[in-house]
Amino acid sequence: MLYKDLYKSTLLSDIIPFWEKNSMDTKDGGYFTCLDRNGKMYDTDKFIWLQGRQAWTFSMLYNNVDRNENWLKIAKHGIDFIVKHGMDKEGNFYFSTTKEGQPLVQPYNIFSDCFAAMAFSQYAIASGDEEIKKLAKQTYLNILKKKDNPKGVYEKSTNARPLKSFALPMILSNLVLELEGILDKEEVEKTIDFSVREVMEVFLDKKSGLIYEFVKPDGSHEDSYNGRLLNPGHGIEAMWFMIDIGVRRKDTKLIEKAADTILKILDYSWDQKHGGILYFMDAHGKPPQQLEWDQKLWWVHLEALVALSKAYEQTGREELKDWYEKVHKYTWSHFSDPENGEWFGYLNRQGEVLLDLKGGKWKGCFHVPRAMFQCWKAFENIESK
Amino acid sequence: MLYKDLYKSTLLSDIIPFWEKNSMDTKDGGYFTCLDRNGKMYDTDKFIWLQGRQAWTFSMLYNNVDRNENWLKIAKHGIDFIVKHGMDKEGNFYFSTTKEGQPLVQPYNIFSDCFAAMAFSQYAIASGDEEIKKLAKQTYLNILKKKDNPKGVYEKSTNARPLKSFALPMILSNLVLELEGILDKEEVEKTIDFSVREVMEVFLDKKSGLIYEFVKPDGSHEDSYNGRLLNPGHGIEAMWFMIDIGVRRKDTKLIEKAADTILKILDYSWDQKHGGILYFMDAHGKPPQQLEWDQKLWWVHLEALVALSKAYEQTGREELKDWYEKVHKYTWSHFSDPENGEWFGYLNRQGEVLLDLKGGKWKGCFHVPRAMFQCWKAFENIESK
Repeated sequence: MLYKDLYKSTLLSDIIPFWEKNSMDTKDGGYFTCLDRNGKMYDTDKFIWLQGRQAWTFSMLYNNVDRNENWLKIAKHGIDFIVKHGMDKEGNFYFSTTKEGQPLVQPYNIFSDCFAAMAFSQYAIASGDEEIKKLAKQTYLNILKKKDNPKGVYEKSTNARPLKSFALPMILSNLVLELEGILDKEEVEKTIDFSVREVMEVFLDKKSGLIYEFVKPDGSHEDSYNGRLLNPGHGIEAMWFMIDIGVRRKDTKLIEKAADTILKILDYSWDQKHGGILYFMDAHGKPPQQLEWDQKLWWVHLEALVALSKAYEQTGREELKDWYEKVHKYTWSHFSDPENGEWFGYLNRQGEVLLDLKGGKWKGCFHVPRAMFQCWKAFENIESK
Repeated sequence: MLYKDLYKSTLLSDIIPFWEKNSMDTKDGGYFTCLDRNGKMYDTDKFIWLQGRQAWTFSMLYNNVDRNENWLKIAKHGIDFIVKHGMDKEGNFYFSTTKEGQPLVQPYNIFSDCFAAMAFSQYAIASGDEEIKKLAKQTYLNILKKKDNPKGVYEKSTNARPLKSFALPMILSNLVLELEGILDKEEVEKTIDFSVREVMEVFLDKKSGLIYEFVKPDGSHEDSYNGRLLNPGHGIEAMWFMIDIGVRRKDTKLIEKAADTILKILDYSWDQKHGGILYFMDAHGKPPQQLEWDQKLWWVHLEALVALSKAYEQTGREELKDWYEKVHKYTWSHFSDPENGEWFGYLNRQGEVLLDLKGGKWKGCFHVPRAMFQCWKAFENIESK
């Protein structure tokens, strides 16, 4: 089977039906994301981050794959819940609510806001809903306002040794393209400039070619747990955001540099002993503070497949193809669950299933379908050449 | 070798020399706790929780083992750092500071306060320092004041679905005995009554015989991630605090119930596949949210050895002796590092070393020496019979 067909059929005949069938809370609205191996709901809490991600996924599919009215209905189901229950009075998004929508965890996490904005924007395109379009822009502006202190009053660090986080420019580089139809052209270009500069010149370390999770405000490195932290999946994911920007701007230098960085990170973080990409590493080889550092996570591997297929599509470099095959083999044989549908999320270092959930507090209807769609489209180009 | 000799000699010839040699920051005061496999310091941040724990350990050894002036000097070294740099103006304790003592992470964690109070109390006994004795009492009273909202302004949960945490009555049951010489008799008895009731009648579930990490304010269970959470090491550790109280009060019923609970928890949490005690479990067998759930941690196993040796010492029940032998065999063969000194802290499920540090952000000079001391004393009684 051609890869484009593998990705397309897995997306449309396995992944999407799994969420269509199992995730809808028809009584209280929104989605269940805590689904066990078979798709059975095991916890009813609603994580706003994941509500936004699923609403985004179904809107995006409606916009890019098929004008399927059920997908639009499913998207609206999540959007309605987020609008009704997801926001506080200042327009910040809660981290989680009860099944019925009562706030459980305060808005300490700016990614709830980011995924709400993405969902609003895609859904506004799909539905033509002007109110939601306004909300998308409003949420985006609120994110910009909060970006220098994203945790607000819940920030526990003093300002004694400030660090800036890679996650923010990384997500902005994707968010701004998602919101392109809504923002002024000037705002879009300014934010792209900012995020490309931060990602490729500040967080990407010239010496090692690796991406650091945190740097000092002046861009230099700090010898501390956070200052030494590498999150290979994050770095690789950001590289396909850079490739998308490179394609949009016809910036082949940016695309080549992103491709080089993907290879560098994979080389550094591939587990020579058991295969797969390690979750966290310490840049100096010191013990990381994350106990889960050696685990193999679904999103890390799927993002690597997207990054490698896009990089190969754009550059045709054989080493990218070779790495693609290596990561493909590991990922499809370890994470995919053809028996019960969807993908496992968490493996131990040896590659055995660590948690057999299909969704939970952090895994929802997002990375798997987005990667399936992105790889399908990349291989459509590659395999038609 | 008799167990009493094994524990005594390991404590005095391996564990304590390791920290004496490697942890002293002679320039800025306090202790380094981030020590690698060989004892070499790899990070200079100071975690107030661990500063308190090490100052407690050396004071306790001075009070109970030997009037070794170097131990008192080492204890003072930590006490001085905590007094000078560990507290904010309201007497709350920071989570961490820089090497020099500048606050890094705000006082969001009441356990920093608890271990400071324990350290002050033991050091006041050791040194006769009246100022430190006053500070111990003051810190204790501040803990009581904060106990219903221990995270203060850093609490991210709304009050929509409140849960109370096992950690608080558990630590109070130990803290109050530690501070017995400082507090009024009435206060001591009242706090013991409160904590025994909470631990043995509220958090200990009658039906399963297991201890839950969180319950609703009325003591019933909640079907949520936190409501289903079991932390077997926590439950087992609390049981030897209960045995200590039982011995003090000549309450054999309490001792028997604690012994029964140790056996119940071990039965439930022993890893049938690879041996050792699992770190986190879900009471309904649902996927736990902690990715590190299947790991084997040093403190869990050491607390089990203390609990089993004390329970056997007090009751003479053979099933406790059998379990002691089983846990002993796993623990000593997997965690102890006779090659480089001290004990490993973190193993994967298979029992292989996951992080080869001897100290870090959470592991310091505490569980290993405390368990060595407690087991030595228990076996002194058992083996002299």
